[in-house]
Amino acid sequence: MTRHELAPTGTATLFQFLRDGRPRTRAELAAETGLARSTVAERIDTLLSSGLLKFSDKANSTGGRPPTTVAFNPAARVVLAADIGATHAKLAVTDLAGDVLVEEDKVLNIADGPEVVLREVCDRGRALLTQAERDETDLLGVGIGLPGPVEHLSGKPTNPPIMPGWDGFDVPAFVRGELGAATLVDNDVNIMALGEYRAHWTKYEHMILVKVATGIGSGLISYGRLHRGSQGAAGDMGHVRVPHDTDILCHCGNVGCLEAVASGAAIAAKLTEAGVPATNSADVVTLARNGSVTALQHIRQAGRDIGEVLATAVSLFNPSVLAVGGALSLAGEHLIAGVREAVYQRSLPLATQNLRIVPLRSGDEAGVSGAAFMVIDHALAAGQVESLLTQ
Amino acid sequence: MTRHELAPTGTATLFQFLRDGRPRTRAELAAETGLARSTVAERIDTLLSSGLLKFSDKANSTGGRPPTTVAFNPAARVVLAADIGATHAKLAVTDLAGDVLVEEDKVLNIADGPEVVLREVCDRGRALLTQAERDETDLLGVGIGLPGPVEHLSGKPTNPPIMPGWDGFDVPAFVRGELGAATLVDNDVNIMALGEYRAHWTKYEHMILVKVATGIGSGLISYGRLHRGSQGAAGDMGHVRVPHDTDILCHCGNVGCLEAVASGAAIAAKLTEAGVPATNSADVVTLARNGSVTALQHIRQAGRDIGEVLATAVSLFNPSVLAVGGALSLAGEHLIAGVREAVYQRSLPLATQNLRIVPLRSGDEAGVSGAAFMVIDHALAAGQVESLLTQ
Repeated sequence: MTRHELAPTGTATLFQFLRDGRPRTRAELAAETGLARSTVAERIDTLLSSGLLKFSDKANSTGGRPPTTVAFNPAARVVLAADIGATHAKLAVTDLAGDVLVEEDKVLNIADGPEVVLREVCDRGRALLTQAERDETDLLGVGIGLPGPVEHLSGKPTNPPIMPGWDGFDVPAFVRGELGAATLVDNDVNIMALGEYRAHWTKYEHMILVKVATGIGSGLISYGRLHRGSQGAAGDMGHVRVPHDTDILCHCGNVGCLEAVASGAAIAAKLTEAGVPATNSADVVTLARNGSVTALQHIRQAGRDIGEVLATAVSLFNPSVLAVGGALSLAGEHLIAGVREAVYQRSLPLATQNLRIVPLRSGDEAGVSGAAFMVIDHALAAGQVESLLTQ
Repeated sequence: MTRHELAPTGTATLFQFLRDGRPRTRAELAAETGLARSTVAERIDTLLSSGLLKFSDKANSTGGRPPTTVAFNPAARVVLAADIGATHAKLAVTDLAGDVLVEEDKVLNIADGPEVVLREVCDRGRALLTQAERDETDLLGVGIGLPGPVEHLSGKPTNPPIMPGWDGFDVPAFVRGELGAATLVDNDVNIMALGEYRAHWTKYEHMILVKVATGIGSGLISYGRLHRGSQGAAGDMGHVRVPHDTDILCHCGNVGCLEAVASGAAIAAKLTEAGVPATNSADVVTLARNGSVTALQHIRQAGRDIGEVLATAVSLFNPSVLAVGGALSLAGEHLIAGVREAVYQRSLPLATQNLRIVPLRSGDEAGVSGAAFMVIDHALAAGQVESLLTQ
């Protein structure tokens, strides 16, 4: 289907000009786009009646001239965003500028399988829409992050290790059945990277975000765009081999994987072995905050191990920003200090001369924010936005 | 300077439609772009008089109707492309479709410094232009690849290890002084990656090209675009640490760098130590072709070592294509066999399920071809092409 079947030519062009938020008159738009004035007038009427544009000057009720300036209307539609983890989810309803209108944290168990988990998410999503005084017909789309590998194009998880029952499940079809809205899915680290980038780092072109929690993963931004890779598997650094000898067996079957050496789960196991009992990232963080020297030592060493692998990523990808997030990063500066130590030692001077190695700034909102932007960027792009005008 | 100062609105839009090579009538262009018919007629006249468009139907000399169909004219301008190595260069003049019109190989010594080398390149470039029956005023631009790190935005080499006298030299200013044309510069591996991708792999989105010669480097393609990184240093994998114990000292000061272990120079040194004298990649290739088992063993091990680092690159970047080129790859299948062995052993199944690990297909033309596309893509992009119409 070409775009001409969807909406009249020029509509998308006009809308892309206006997405920057600056109000314009029809005459200005004709001058900027080169479109005929009559075409501009017609297309603007279509965009106004779709709600994607609004008048930005008020009609003078005492009899002045009618409103002439139009602007993008972020309130035209809403997005339901869900950042689903192993044991909890964060849900939000945002407007088309990505601003959160309402949000909610929810306890769940990913191992209950896709139907149970997604039905809960959709139920709570409906409640959030009501809370925001909107309904399902206002949905531009639904954006979902999952804690495992996802084939982004189909929205299906691919052999996710901690998600029994999810392999190959058609997440978009299920959610569309529940809420009637187009749904995009990606892994939790990618949406976190997108959210963090859009909130804080858009003046740079290239970023790597690493998430250190039960597992270890990363998200890559190239020229401001999420680099997903061919199977949507880009950024998967948990099973990269650490460059020092180790015989630690990973659940993937290889030895010396980063995740088997430096994840929250790995540190908890090492601490337990050293006589300091811990079962997960949260325990490790608590021990660190209570001043356990053994815990701090292990966190710092994990930072160095992660930094060794990130040094390779920095040499290959040459980002401006390397952001460190995830549950284990809550233990304070020890993790990132280890990362810095190894990255600066092993990367080429040219690749690190302007590199910023920083803690995640967006906190735990990065995921839902990124999930919302994933939907907004896709649906409002030229070639997509036309479909919103024929509904 | 906004684009409105350069050329009338709509010209770039029209030209981008026509860059696909398909001829169109003015009426078709008005329908496709939504531009007013009078605007289309004016802008097409401008593009025709610049030469960037041509009539694609012949006027009927016996009195038929005048020509009405216009198309992109790749012969409108030419590009001078130079792939400069340590001891030789390949030069070519191409048209705006990137097709080589004339080319030449040239012996030179990069250590003679930038002024000597670039003056030689410009002199031979002028001769090639004459051979192609064009002159300097026909140049769209000059594209140059250099065997060291280059800050792409400024076109200046940055601490290039094998290029004495080149650090910080303003290559574009010098070449513009000689030939009067805008000049873009990048490192040799990036232009090789771009040339190989555009010639053979555009149906895939993501590619890594690794060049194994005296040094080891790679070029990354993300969504069809060269990922250069923040300092133009992306793909620099020569100084990534190999993940097994080694005490080999690298010229960069670290130990265990890939380049110190697996480059052509490193293999030559190991062979010499083993009683099989060799001084460079070419010697190693000759030994391999003559059936030296020791040489084949070392090449295969180099392939494994390179593959260990590439396994990390594959996990992080998730390309569809991993192309292996450079002088050492001429030794036959042994290098790439070692690469395949390590990549398939160490990368995640998801990242390798559709991965193609292949020898470079473009041969030694990849570099000049990529240098030409670097110039063409830049100069004919919307926002740039307008400047060609005011000259």
